[in-house]
Amino acid sequence: MNIKPLADRIVVKPIEAEAKTASGIIVPDTAKEKPQQGEVVAVGIGRLLDNGERAAMEVAVGDKIIYSKYSGTEIKLDGTEYLILNERDILAKL
Amino acid sequence: MNIKPLADRIVVKPIEAEAKTASGIIVPDTAKEKPQQGEVVAVGIGRLLDNGERAAMEVAVGDKIIYSKYSGTEIKLDGTEYLILNERDILAKL
Amino acid sequence: MNIKPLADRIVVKPIEAEAKTASGIIVPDTAKEKPQQGEVVAVGIGRLLDNGERAAMEVAVGDKIIYSKYSGTEIKLDGTEYLILNERDILAKL
Amino acid sequence: MNIKPLADRIVVKPIEAEAKTASGIIVPDTAKEKPQQGEVVAVGIGRLLDNGERAAMEVAVGDKIIYSKYSGTEIKLDGTEYLILNERDILAKL
Amino acid sequence: MNIKPLADRIVVKPIEAEAKTASGIIVPDTAKEKPQQGEVVAVGIGRLLDNGERAAMEVAVGDKIIYSKYSGTEIKLDGTEYLILNERDILAKL
Amino acid sequence: MNIKPLADRIVVKPIEAEAKTASGIIVPDTAKEKPQQGEVVAVGIGRLLDNGERAAMEVAVGDKIIYSKYSGTEIKLDGTEYLILNERDILAKL
Amino acid sequence: MNIKPLADRIVVKPIEAEAKTASGIIVPDTAKEKPQQGEVVAVGIGRLLDNGERAAMEVAVGDKIIYSKYSGTEIKLDGTEYLILNERDILAKL
Repeated sequence: MNIKPLADRIVVKPIEAEAKTASGIIVPDTAKEKPQQGEVVAVGIGRLLDNGERAAMEVAVGDKIIYSKYSGTEIKLDGTEYLILNERDILAKL
Repeated sequence: MNIKPLADRIVVKPIEAEAKTASGIIVPDTAKEKPQQGEVVAVGIGRLLDNGERAAMEVAVGDKIIYSKYSGTEIKLDGTEYLILNERDILAKL
Repeated sequence: MNIKPLADRIVVKPIEAEAKTASGIIVPDTAKEKPQQGEVVAVGIGRLLDNGERAAMEVAVGDKIIYSKYSGTEIKLDGTEYLILNERDILAKL
Repeated sequence: MNIKPLADRIVVKPIEAEAKTASGIIVPDTAKEKPQQGEVVAVGIGRLLDNGERAAMEVAVGDKIIYSKYSGTEIKLDGTEYLILNERDILAKL
Repeated sequence: MNIKPLADRIVVKPIEAEAKTASGIIVPDTAKEKPQQGEVVAVGIGRLLDNGERAAMEVAVGDKIIYSKYSGTEIKLDGTEYLILNERDILAKL
Repeated sequence: MNIKPLADRIVVKPIEAEAKTASGIIVPDTAKEKPQQGEVVAVGIGRLLDNGERAAMEVAVGDKIIYSKYSGTEIKLDGTEYLILNERDILAKL
Repeated sequence: MNIKPLADRIVVKPIEAEAKTASGIIVPDTAKEKPQQGEVVAVGIGRLLDNGERAAMEVAVGDKIIYSKYSGTEIKLDGTEYLILNERDILAKL
């Protein structure tokens, strides 16, 4: 991928949450304001530490992550929507 | 469990507070806005220090904890509700 | 006591302020919005320093302390009310 | 005195400002919202530094100090009013 | 270029986003409040670290970058519009 | 002078700005909300650094300084008005 | 010049922006709320670092600089208007 996020930023491709019941019916979900899942497609070189070094990133390209829904900046590359996040906006890896 | 929180985050399974009197009657409790209990089900690798190292976590999987009721982010995994907290939102271990 | 506060937190048992005059009459005291006294019943392992070490706590179990009235989080353990405070909310030892 | 303030706090006994003219007449002074004087009666062990050590206090018991009027927390010990201040609320020694 | 930004600032020449469809028709785009692209034309010597050294810049003259649309300060040099940004306002390199 | 400001504070004696024209006429000056001049009459031992040492003060007793008009705390000593300032409120020496 | 700014401050003499068109007509410019240019006439000894040392200044007397229009404090010396700025308010050197 021809994008390189700076410092401790990552580029993530959101994964659409499935809003189907077990029987396959799509239900409107008012409680869906939950964290979102995504796949990491690019990672920065790490946050700059006070001593001038870079902290190792905890995530790598290909990781599935959970992140806070309202964080990050949307970008569109070659017609696809991505999100640029700070590593601290990532809650967990799956 | 197939979830790994980042940095100094933990995943906790809330424990329902019992709202029964000794005689077993369920009473509405207006004063129940108290801290909540939970069980730690996953822990991160620790907060990043200024020197680039990670601080050891004070809690481990299986610990019963007390945490501030309104902190953290709710997630649902395999139909069960969990909470992702920062270690600093944990008040005490039981 | 089966509770262990994290980091630089302590658990304190509030001591009721006596609102009696020398002659024993209970007087309403509008000026009683003063700091509160309590006894320390549990202490954490100390605040995490930037170098990853823990700072020694200045208070120990059994200490009588004065703390700011509106700080801390109330918890109820075995029917007794306690308060979880940060060490920095403690004003003085008696 | 049986009180020991924590960290870089001090206990101070306020000195009443004299509102008399040279001829001894008490005058109301609308411009009296000035810093207050007091005498230090107890000092803490010093502020915790990032390296885990304690900074030496600049004031000692017996020092006359000027402090900002609206800083600190009032306490009453054995019927006398005192103030618990942070060292940084002290403006100067006299 | 005869401009030298200070510290971790950079000078960027914004690249106009193309608002044409594949068929060449210009369409108004209400969703265009997205990050902006630009080309780096000058870079500072790096952010001052606590130890007095300068952190290496992650971008160099000629880099194509994506930055947050509302960050930075506009300047006009020799009739051309530029933007002075902090390196932390840069989201990614392309 | 029998006053010793703490840390990086100084005591300054304000110098009245002259509101006279060259011909000696006093003119009201609506634009006089400018920084004020003063003479340093006492200096503290310097700001406490993170390593526990004190930073050398940049000003000394006798220096003429320019300071921001609304900074500092007024005190009256032996009938004279002074100001206690932080060194960082001083703009320049003359 | 008989003025010495403290720490990382500088004294700058603003350069009036020319509001003339090529043909010499003065035009009111509503879009002129842009950064301002000036010439450095005095520099401080540098910002105090956490280790007690001073950071080298990036600008020197005689430098032409661009700074944010609304930063700094105006002073008048010998009838001339100057501005005292922090080095971090300087955007670039020309």
